[in-house]
Amino acid sequence: MTMTDDHTTASTTGGRPPLVPSFVEGRWWQPTTGTEVRDAATGTPVALVGAEGLDVAAAVKYARGVGQASLGSFTFHQRALILKALGAHLNESKTELYELSSNTGATARDSMVDIDGGIGVLFTYASKGRRELPNSTTLVDGAAEGLSRDGSFGGQHLYSRVSGVAFQVNAFNFPVWGMLEKFAPAFLAGVPSIVKPATPTAYLTQACVRLMVESGLLPDGSLQLISGSVRGFLDHLDLRDRVGFTGSASTAKALREDGGVIDRGVVLTAETDSLNSAILGLDAEPGTPEFDAFIASVATEMTAKAGQKCTAIRRVIVPRPRVDAVVAAIGERLAQRVVVGDPRVEGVTMGPLASIEQRDEVRRSIETLLAGGATLAIGSLEPPAVPTADGIVDLAPEGAFLAPVLLRFEDADADVVHQVEAFGPVASVIGYKDTADAVRLARRGGGSLVATIASADPGIVAELFEGIAPFHGRVLVLDRDDVKTSTGHGSPVPHLVHGGPGRAGGGEELGGIRSVLHYMQRTAIQGTPKVLTALTGQWRAGAPSDPSGEHPFRKPLSRLRVGDSVESQAREITLQDIGHFADFTGDTFYAHTDEQAAAANPFFPGRVAHGYLLLSWAAGLFVDPAPGPVLANYGLENLRFLTPVVPGDSVHVTLTAKQITPRENEDYGEVRWDAVLRNQADQPVATYDVLTLVSKD
Amino acid sequence: MTMTDDHTTASTTGGRPPLVPSFVEGRWWQPTTGTEVRDAATGTPVALVGAEGLDVAAAVKYARGVGQASLGSFTFHQRALILKALGAHLNESKTELYELSSNTGATARDSMVDIDGGIGVLFTYASKGRRELPNSTTLVDGAAEGLSRDGSFGGQHLYSRVSGVAFQVNAFNFPVWGMLEKFAPAFLAGVPSIVKPATPTAYLTQACVRLMVESGLLPDGSLQLISGSVRGFLDHLDLRDRVGFTGSASTAKALREDGGVIDRGVVLTAETDSLNSAILGLDAEPGTPEFDAFIASVATEMTAKAGQKCTAIRRVIVPRPRVDAVVAAIGERLAQRVVVGDPRVEGVTMGPLASIEQRDEVRRSIETLLAGGATLAIGSLEPPAVPTADGIVDLAPEGAFLAPVLLRFEDADADVVHQVEAFGPVASVIGYKDTADAVRLARRGGGSLVATIASADPGIVAELFEGIAPFHGRVLVLDRDDVKTSTGHGSPVPHLVHGGPGRAGGGEELGGIRSVLHYMQRTAIQGTPKVLTALTGQWRAGAPSDPSGEHPFRKPLSRLRVGDSVESQAREITLQDIGHFADFTGDTFYAHTDEQAAAANPFFPGRVAHGYLLLSWAAGLFVDPAPGPVLANYGLENLRFLTPVVPGDSVHVTLTAKQITPRENEDYGEVRWDAVLRNQADQPVATYDVLTLVSKD
Repeated sequence: MTMTDDHTTASTTGGRPPLVPSFVEGRWWQPTTGTEVRDAATGTPVALVGAEGLDVAAAVKYARGVGQASLGSFTFHQRALILKALGAHLNESKTELYELSSNTGATARDSMVDIDGGIGVLFTYASKGRRELPNSTTLVDGAAEGLSRDGSFGGQHLYSRVSGVAFQVNAFNFPVWGMLEKFAPAFLAGVPSIVKPATPTAYLTQACVRLMVESGLLPDGSLQLISGSVRGFLDHLDLRDRVGFTGSASTAKALREDGGVIDRGVVLTAETDSLNSAILGLDAEPGTPEFDAFIASVATEMTAKAGQKCTAIRRVIVPRPRVDAVVAAIGERLAQRVVVGDPRVEGVTMGPLASIEQRDEVRRSIETLLAGGATLAIGSLEPPAVPTADGIVDLAPEGAFLAPVLLRFEDADADVVHQVEAFGPVASVIGYKDTADAVRLARRGGGSLVATIASADPGIVAELFEGIAPFHGRVLVLDRDDVKTSTGHGSPVPHLVHGGPGRAGGGEELGGIRSVLHYMQRTAIQGTPKVLTALTGQWRAGAPSDPSGEHPFRKPLSRLRVGDSVESQAREITLQDIGHFADFTGDTFYAHTDEQAAAANPFFPGRVAHGYLLLSWAAGLFVDPAPGPVLANYGLENLRFLTPVVPGDSVHVTLTAKQITPRENEDYGEVRWDAVLRNQADQPVATYDVLTLVSKD
Repeated sequence: MTMTDDHTTASTTGGRPPLVPSFVEGRWWQPTTGTEVRDAATGTPVALVGAEGLDVAAAVKYARGVGQASLGSFTFHQRALILKALGAHLNESKTELYELSSNTGATARDSMVDIDGGIGVLFTYASKGRRELPNSTTLVDGAAEGLSRDGSFGGQHLYSRVSGVAFQVNAFNFPVWGMLEKFAPAFLAGVPSIVKPATPTAYLTQACVRLMVESGLLPDGSLQLISGSVRGFLDHLDLRDRVGFTGSASTAKALREDGGVIDRGVVLTAETDSLNSAILGLDAEPGTPEFDAFIASVATEMTAKAGQKCTAIRRVIVPRPRVDAVVAAIGERLAQRVVVGDPRVEGVTMGPLASIEQRDEVRRSIETLLAGGATLAIGSLEPPAVPTADGIVDLAPEGAFLAPVLLRFEDADADVVHQVEAFGPVASVIGYKDTADAVRLARRGGGSLVATIASADPGIVAELFEGIAPFHGRVLVLDRDDVKTSTGHGSPVPHLVHGGPGRAGGGEELGGIRSVLHYMQRTAIQGTPKVLTALTGQWRAGAPSDPSGEHPFRKPLSRLRVGDSVESQAREITLQDIGHFADFTGDTFYAHTDEQAAAANPFFPGRVAHGYLLLSWAAGLFVDPAPGPVLANYGLENLRFLTPVVPGDSVHVTLTAKQITPRENEDYGEVRWDAVLRNQADQPVATYDVLTLVSKD
């Protein structure tokens, strides 16, 4: 094993293209040899990618030791802020990434999806981490469960991070986004990542990792990079670890069959290419906005990233009588808008495939589709003529170019159209009979990442959605009202789950905090309210509370503790109070104003106090009025009125600090208070959580 | 294949014990032969269990067709009520099950755990289904996500049931509970079950299924039973289906390696036996309540169900200096309380193992443990003497008896103690050095279903919990305050997840609604607010609403529709109003009463209206006061105050019907209203959900 501290960038040795280093155990590691990777458009050698001899076991050990310790010293909010800073740093430095991205065959627009899309994932997790997670290291899941009548024993689910490494195996098509969409949620969970990019575009991932390392923002061991193939990495992993894989179904299968997964409890999430469909509703006649949006979406998905997207539309499912019109419209749009060529040449809108090997693979898949019943409706298997920088047309270019290919099948049930994926600018049109038939055909894909439904008819949308939902991770409904603002069929957004059942790999990535939980273990805790409070950081009824000391509204966060509480005096409610409140607020609902009508109501014994009167009085009873650390009541949750309050009743309230969430970048934080309003018989009248902002000091 | 309609119970043929029928395609199916199963205590043949020749493919087809259709015609609440009725029916008929249960070696107490425990699962899901799920067939997951600035495009996650079958492979030890704990959540999700019990106790499962069938409550195809081994059942399943397996790690491994899982996307949940531990805290000296509770728990887990529980304590992890005391105390308790014998004999507290084969298997495991470094502290491998009904002691009984065996290891790191499970009345004591060492030893089990921590020291509990949580599905903290009310180490409760990572199988069962979701696919929907509203049944901002018609408070559920709304007049707020409200409620917080102090607050421009004043006025603005279908406001959710309201501002409110949940057994239901309070500049001042009860007619 060669370890060097001085090789941070791809280095050139003699006439060879630069060797792409790895980043393990906090240092850059230089390979001695590697696979030659060429520019997709020009064929020029770009880099040598290899990790032969790299000590994977040492990297795993470093992650489990140093990485876990350093990430464990930060809370969710602190990690979120590091993600935000990393995003800002990459944003400033991204020009370099865009330049390298051209080598992969990406157009500027493709690069934007990869690079800015990846940075966007960091920002989304930075934001969601602070808004949707507590400022701590574990996450309470669901409500507390009472398990004894006397309240002395209960249960609570809690997520804590797994104690190993997130090993991430990525695909070639999104070298930046593909890394960041897995890194961000693992980082937020507090689990260190080891990233293994695909060889053809590893140099771009490496450049991004270098920028992240240079930022100085990464906690030690939180990110390692293995630039090149490593055999048997699962041998080093066990139940502590998570593997996130994106790539071919065949590799996913090999991982599923590995002893690490079968015997040692490694949890594998696979996201594999699927035969995604777009369905044109029966209502979407040519000339409708839905028809146009559908055509535009198919054409975009065929050509963006030269169709090398796991989310691309492969099956274009349209009413049988409209197959000709759809094929013609797609052809027209492609002819008008698509110029294949070197993405660095002005006017080019679609780049080459990632490599010659990849292009040949796509050609073979097209041939299989043709042999299985397809006819070639648009495009050709011959190399397209491409424009050059000199303004000349190159009739026999060196690069991995392929023109968009649209196939059509007379037999919509031909097996190949539902099973064979050509991972390039290729789609197939099939016709359906009725909506139920369209559902059946979409389901024949055996599980997909995403489907588009283009329809403005609510009945058709509902039937299609209900039929295909259990077979899809994401369904986009396209109509005249969202055609301009839709984020598009092919673009996973970090807010929503990315993945799908069956052929799509069975995994779920992204989806906001859902994907963070994938790096955590859910454990049910059973114990007393005191123990549950201590282990979750959230006070619950029955746990110790102290109402005897200083009013908790006088305590800043630095002194406030979960369980600090105040018990108010009692206040009696009269019929006059109720009448007065009705007059003042205008809320003259009969249950408050008409004795006879109120008594006829199944829930009230007669005239009762307004719920909002009780809330208002409760505040009057628990508030400490003078200026102090409590700055504002910004909201309220989980209010339930449990017992009606009638004239002559008196109410008192207990308020207890339930959860304390200091903000990292403010001099205040959030305090959630448990409020219980009781009547003179100590029956609970109302329970709720009061949300306040409280100063730190 | 032999199909008969007249064989609903195990039938006797000649001198043979009865053949146990299966229930498939809505009919009882009689095998022609089977494996002989004997009474655990007497060795008398009890039943012949077999399913040779049963058409599994037809059962799967029936479930996917008839079962899916019939369950699909019910909502969550309707299914929950069927579960409740099934529970009540079994409760009335359970005597028969208790009698059969004795044949399995179960004591009355063991039978209670199995039979009443199973019925309890039905009741818990019946209750949770109605309280925690909407009265519909899909479930919204998480908050809506805005994906466009103008609000015209957004996302929402939605769960819908999978379209196949829940194939359930159960273990021999809990023939009733084991079936019902999987059946209940699948049924609630709307997914038909095919139950395959383990051969040794299949006759008891069959009796329970027969009672359920006879009740007439089961929708067609919702439950099928295969009484006996079936090879290759995964061949018939694909991504539509779920397999829930409980049993040995070796069978779980075979299922994981099967093509159904590897290639066709069958989702497998495995729950396998694990080497669960109980940890005695350093503080829990002999004489403390925690020490006594710990000893009692270990002794109970060794002997309940003769130790044949996947949750039983196998590793007793105690401070090194306390090993002798622990061994002595366990020995004393066992000697005082345990009488091994035929559970039908008076005074017997622990039955035999399920079969002679099972006893021999346990003996072999004990020998492996002894060979790996254990010494026999308590018990013996010789057959115990057992009392008989005549009051005589039988020194060489026929049944599968084994006395409780406690082992101790001088070397706490002996591999066998962390790897070899003796699935019987067997546990091993090992010593630890300090709390970190106890964590390390517990983790050596490689993932467990459950651990007990016996300690009253919050620091010790926290350190142990944090260390072991990611390796466990459940952790019970036992101390003096919950020793009497604890549901016990070995008893999964339906409210909490049952399962664990790694060796425990990696699955999660039970846990309330969490396990229902396991039978559903989560799909991200993208579209306009109108489309999201239509597909989820929940109105959201931007979707069509109609404030022009009749006041929605005048509409009963039969006429009320999601989107019906009312827009109020505006009302101006004066300084006098604020002062008056402060006086009336007693809420004299300075932000409402002191101009200078309020202006110094970072969030307020000066004196502002009370949030509760705004809420109260909003009610005054939207309420339609006369008696009508709206019966009560029972609560409020998600209240946020967004913009301060100052004297001179005026507010108006829009209320829109958001979600409508009719109750099945009442003449009313719940309506959730979206409330938005705006100021004169149309800025949102407060947003919240109002919860009401509304009559059906």
